[in-house]
Amino acid sequence: MLDAAIPSRADAQALDRDDPLREMRDAFDIPDGVVYLDGNSLGPLPKVAREALHHAIETEWRTDLIKSWNTAGWIDLPTRTGDRIARLIGAPTGSVICADSVSVNLFKLAASLVTKGAGLVAVERGDFPTDGYILEGLARLSGAGFSLIDPGAGIAGLPEPGGVLVRSAVHYKTAEIVDIKAEEDEAKARGATIIWDLSHAVGLVDTKLEACGARYAVGCGYKYLNGGPGAPGFVYAHPSVAGDLAQPLSGWMGHVSPFEFTDGYRPADGIKRFAAGTPPILSMTALHASLGLYEGLDLSALEAKARALGDLFLSRIAPLELECISPGIGARRAGHVSVRHEDGYAIVQALIARGIIGDFRAPDLMRFGFSPLILSYADVFDAAEALVETVQSDAFKAEEFTARGTVT
Amino acid sequence: MLDAAIPSRADAQALDRDDPLREMRDAFDIPDGVVYLDGNSLGPLPKVAREALHHAIETEWRTDLIKSWNTAGWIDLPTRTGDRIARLIGAPTGSVICADSVSVNLFKLAASLVTKGAGLVAVERGDFPTDGYILEGLARLSGAGFSLIDPGAGIAGLPEPGGVLVRSAVHYKTAEIVDIKAEEDEAKARGATIIWDLSHAVGLVDTKLEACGARYAVGCGYKYLNGGPGAPGFVYAHPSVAGDLAQPLSGWMGHVSPFEFTDGYRPADGIKRFAAGTPPILSMTALHASLGLYEGLDLSALEAKARALGDLFLSRIAPLELECISPGIGARRAGHVSVRHEDGYAIVQALIARGIIGDFRAPDLMRFGFSPLILSYADVFDAAEALVETVQSDAFKAEEFTARGTVT
Repeated sequence: MLDAAIPSRADAQALDRDDPLREMRDAFDIPDGVVYLDGNSLGPLPKVAREALHHAIETEWRTDLIKSWNTAGWIDLPTRTGDRIARLIGAPTGSVICADSVSVNLFKLAASLVTKGAGLVAVERGDFPTDGYILEGLARLSGAGFSLIDPGAGIAGLPEPGGVLVRSAVHYKTAEIVDIKAEEDEAKARGATIIWDLSHAVGLVDTKLEACGARYAVGCGYKYLNGGPGAPGFVYAHPSVAGDLAQPLSGWMGHVSPFEFTDGYRPADGIKRFAAGTPPILSMTALHASLGLYEGLDLSALEAKARALGDLFLSRIAPLELECISPGIGARRAGHVSVRHEDGYAIVQALIARGIIGDFRAPDLMRFGFSPLILSYADVFDAAEALVETVQSDAFKAEEFTARGTVT
Repeated sequence: MLDAAIPSRADAQALDRDDPLREMRDAFDIPDGVVYLDGNSLGPLPKVAREALHHAIETEWRTDLIKSWNTAGWIDLPTRTGDRIARLIGAPTGSVICADSVSVNLFKLAASLVTKGAGLVAVERGDFPTDGYILEGLARLSGAGFSLIDPGAGIAGLPEPGGVLVRSAVHYKTAEIVDIKAEEDEAKARGATIIWDLSHAVGLVDTKLEACGARYAVGCGYKYLNGGPGAPGFVYAHPSVAGDLAQPLSGWMGHVSPFEFTDGYRPADGIKRFAAGTPPILSMTALHASLGLYEGLDLSALEAKARALGDLFLSRIAPLELECISPGIGARRAGHVSVRHEDGYAIVQALIARGIIGDFRAPDLMRFGFSPLILSYADVFDAAEALVETVQSDAFKAEEFTARGTVT
């Protein structure tokens, strides 16, 4: 592991030689000359996803047509995909379903809890905005209260006993990792409920949900899971509670017998009731295939490598003395680091022009992601050197980098 | 057009020679030897969809990665796709967005109307089940009333003035076409509101929504639009009302400035607020491309051909004396016909074994769809002959056809 001395490129190469994940990179098709530090936003293309999409287009859709609902297993693709995710988040088989988006899934879970009697839904200020936006919409429709609580306060920040807190297990800006077990213990003591947003955790942090007592979660398929642009999200509800939930987006795919075409909704067992409409099969196929890459991988090794890559990056860019809002070297941190610079936009553009792809979040945040499946220590060393050089040389001040387009 | 005399195969071939849509079939890749009478359930593969998917996988995802949100226009793919749909349903440009599923979109619209004060949401018994299921879920969460009204009653069947009726423009079982203008006039007289479910109408029936006074609709991308398995759905709200709607699935993609990442939801203008989470780009790309096939096509020609194909089919199977629950020969009818037979399951299986793909709906309904872009009159003639032969010869009684698997 890294020590206080600043590692050299030879040190980085030595780490690569010992890296148990070093061959995973070959499972992806990443353009030559690119160091991709945005796998925390959109994972790159796994070769198995390409193959699965080709099969879905040519054999399932083109050739077998409507039969593929049975012969290709489209009908249970949401639960098969969910089961692959379950293992990654420490949830029992059969407790996760792939469906819709994080936003829609969060609505389903939070609304289910409101229907069971929760009078308040809350989220921390500065958490990923869609979580709060969705709770606002739910509150307006259902009459539940909505609160924005202090950043980092967690369950202790809820203004009253009971209530539902939506909380990111990994913060999208800072990459801080929440102690799920401690928060769940506190929630139980206060009669409150937590819905975990795992978008920046799944596929990277070993969240061990069931062991921590966590019963509700949602998450995203297109970041570390590499499921492709806008890949569907997922919902987890522990089997001890899922059967008691009446989720309001009670579409036909969550009915106990959708092909009986009867009036009157009767929910499917357990998590299956969290399906709503017909799922986007092509997008879900890519995610399902990409999840296959995680078979046999040790999640603790993924988290450890991501953190070590981040430590290496921070060590090498230390001369820039940038403010880092992420946990520092040696501290527990998930898959990215965020550093401030008033010219962050132009700097990120200048790096992109060199093939080093990070992202920028207004007004001044540069975010660099360290997806452990696709990056070597040498990649990260080189990216850090490029950042130092770009900033120190003022290369980012060229007009081609400072002119703003649409920012995503 | 067909007359009372039963058309011969030569007549069918003559109709093909005069068919203005006859070259459209070349735009699809349909397996040799297949007569596909299930385009009303899952449209076949358009060649442009394959090309667009290949481009999305190799250039947009693989090569350009996160940049594609801007360079490939992923960020406005929902509105670009919506605009293509708008033309097909007679809605103004900018009044339709592609997003989520029919079920989820229906929830958004109906919930918006409940938030504006509607106290009752209703659907006809026997309409497509997800419509009722979703309204049940909405009613439970919001406190609005929910009614199942008499089949075919339409707006006059609402138990009280006001209220919201969800109604299929084309019935999924019978293919009856509702007089949208007459229903909208009646709704206005009663102070009620209709949300149209266009799933079995879009891409086939010239619904002329704006001209009929229709202000709210949802629909499906994977049937006549040929958008691929589970293609996303769409929402329409007329510009005169869209800006007043507070839809509760208020995710970040419907925020006025999603990339400001601020707390506090502020809806985007008009229909854009009906976006919720990140859209499934691969699935939506296929739909967007497939919609390109409709450019320059006259919707009235599509509806006329589908009806003529259905008339031909019904004429040729008349000797079987099957009960037909669809409008009969010469009556206005959308894209499919449904006929009853107690051995319908086995008959449909026996036809599938001959390459003629229809579908079965328990307990006894055989449904044959006549997508006008992919079928010739000769195809339909041959399919009808095969049905007659299968039934008259008892060929369907073989055990391979009567044994039930999972039915979709």
